[in-house]
Amino acid sequence: MTYCLAINVENGLVFCSDSRTNAGVDQVSTYSKMYRFGIEGERQFVVLSAGNLGTTQAVISRLKRDIKDGAEQSLKTVESMSDAAEYLGEVNRAQQEKHSDNTSANFEASFIIGGQIQGEKPRVMMVYPAGNHITTSKDTRYLQIGESKYGKPILDRILTAKTDLDTSALCALVSMDSTMRSNLTVGPPIELLRYEKDSFTGQHNRFDEDDEYLRELKKAWDARLVEAFVQLPPIDWQPQSPDESHEA
Amino acid sequence: MTYCLAINVENGLVFCSDSRTNAGVDQVSTYSKMYRFGIEGERQFVVLSAGNLGTTQAVISRLKRDIKDGAEQSLKTVESMSDAAEYLGEVNRAQQEKHSDNTSANFEASFIIGGQIQGEKPRVMMVYPAGNHITTSKDTRYLQIGESKYGKPILDRILTAKTDLDTSALCALVSMDSTMRSNLTVGPPIELLRYEKDSFTGQHNRFDEDDEYLRELKKAWDARLVEAFVQLPPIDWQPQSPDESHEA
Repeated sequence: MTYCLAINVENGLVFCSDSRTNAGVDQVSTYSKMYRFGIEGERQFVVLSAGNLGTTQAVISRLKRDIKDGAEQSLKTVESMSDAAEYLGEVNRAQQEKHSDNTSANFEASFIIGGQIQGEKPRVMMVYPAGNHITTSKDTRYLQIGESKYGKPILDRILTAKTDLDTSALCALVSMDSTMRSNLTVGPPIELLRYEKDSFTGQHNRFDEDDEYLRELKKAWDARLVEAFVQLPPIDWQPQSPDESHEA
Repeated sequence: MTYCLAINVENGLVFCSDSRTNAGVDQVSTYSKMYRFGIEGERQFVVLSAGNLGTTQAVISRLKRDIKDGAEQSLKTVESMSDAAEYLGEVNRAQQEKHSDNTSANFEASFIIGGQIQGEKPRVMMVYPAGNHITTSKDTRYLQIGESKYGKPILDRILTAKTDLDTSALCALVSMDSTMRSNLTVGPPIELLRYEKDSFTGQHNRFDEDDEYLRELKKAWDARLVEAFVQLPPIDWQPQSPDESHEA
């Protein structure tokens, strides 16, 4: 399994990904799921991947080769983030179809692509296995691929357009931590990338399994939550009304 | 869908359930999923239900009838919580099998049964469609049925054996709120029951859709979380190393 997410707030973008891949529970490996492409000062892309590892690796190779070969369409030539997502969708579909004929195996893969092209606002898109894509909105500031449920509530409670980049990054790490606790097939190293609007460069951190900061963050967050409960309005309990109980 | 959970801490038990049932998205109704049985001062049971509504209603009817008819085995006669779960499992299986022959429809139902019998500790069990059951442990203080993923992280971060009953109850409400935000087929009224060890009675609250307290709690919790982020250790960002970026 996988958990990747991207956040789009007014000041920029945040990307976060785990690095665990597995086929069953006893074939577990570590692969980065975060790829960066760009021309410093001109265009920056971050791609996050989920799904069949053969497909995601083939897709990323193709993206690199198209750039290297000076292909008509590549991340170097696309004119908008929306074109970039369209292009990634086509590559994704082509790679899946290559092997789908003679087997019932699942070659599906999903991607998140985000970044900024000079003259455009920063944007984030999610590319489905079918090749189509969606983007964030005023009300929905994030996109997720993979095991998305455990880490969703904290994003819903915290993220708005005005959330600053550092809080967004912390929120992504807490969301990732919630997911790792509950799904063993999501695991470290964790990669985190912070992209400030109009910077056309990024800041990237990688947290290994025994990372001191990640441990400290987890501990601090757990402690803050316990404290938060103390400040909540107390429940005004009603005695159990006897007529609602079924006398045994 | 459904979300029900039960918490087992040293001082007692907490039960929480939603009340939405649906077949598709345009056939939505409200049914309580929390049932109480007991003899004040002697034995108390709380049953939470998830799954096929025909099955859960038939199971609860049968539990009531067995008590009323003075059957050899009923919640009035079982000698332990474990026997109670075994009995509920048999009733559940029998009701599912009644209709399963001529259709591919899914009649499965799951239950949580918790409570206390004089002379025993309070206990909580989860009864599977197959009739078997599991209970909580020293490390796992809660059980969930239905849409369990969204509400799980907060339970994992907060609950220990020593958590007091009021915090446990607030934690259950926050877990329920997280789930309701993310899954439309989990909805109010929310029922909450607090059982103090050796009390052999309970306190029960029901929160409707427009409940003032629930709104206040949600607002307070969101505010506390935003504050909590401010106190977290800041990330020590590394500049993006150019050799790791793929030049477009």
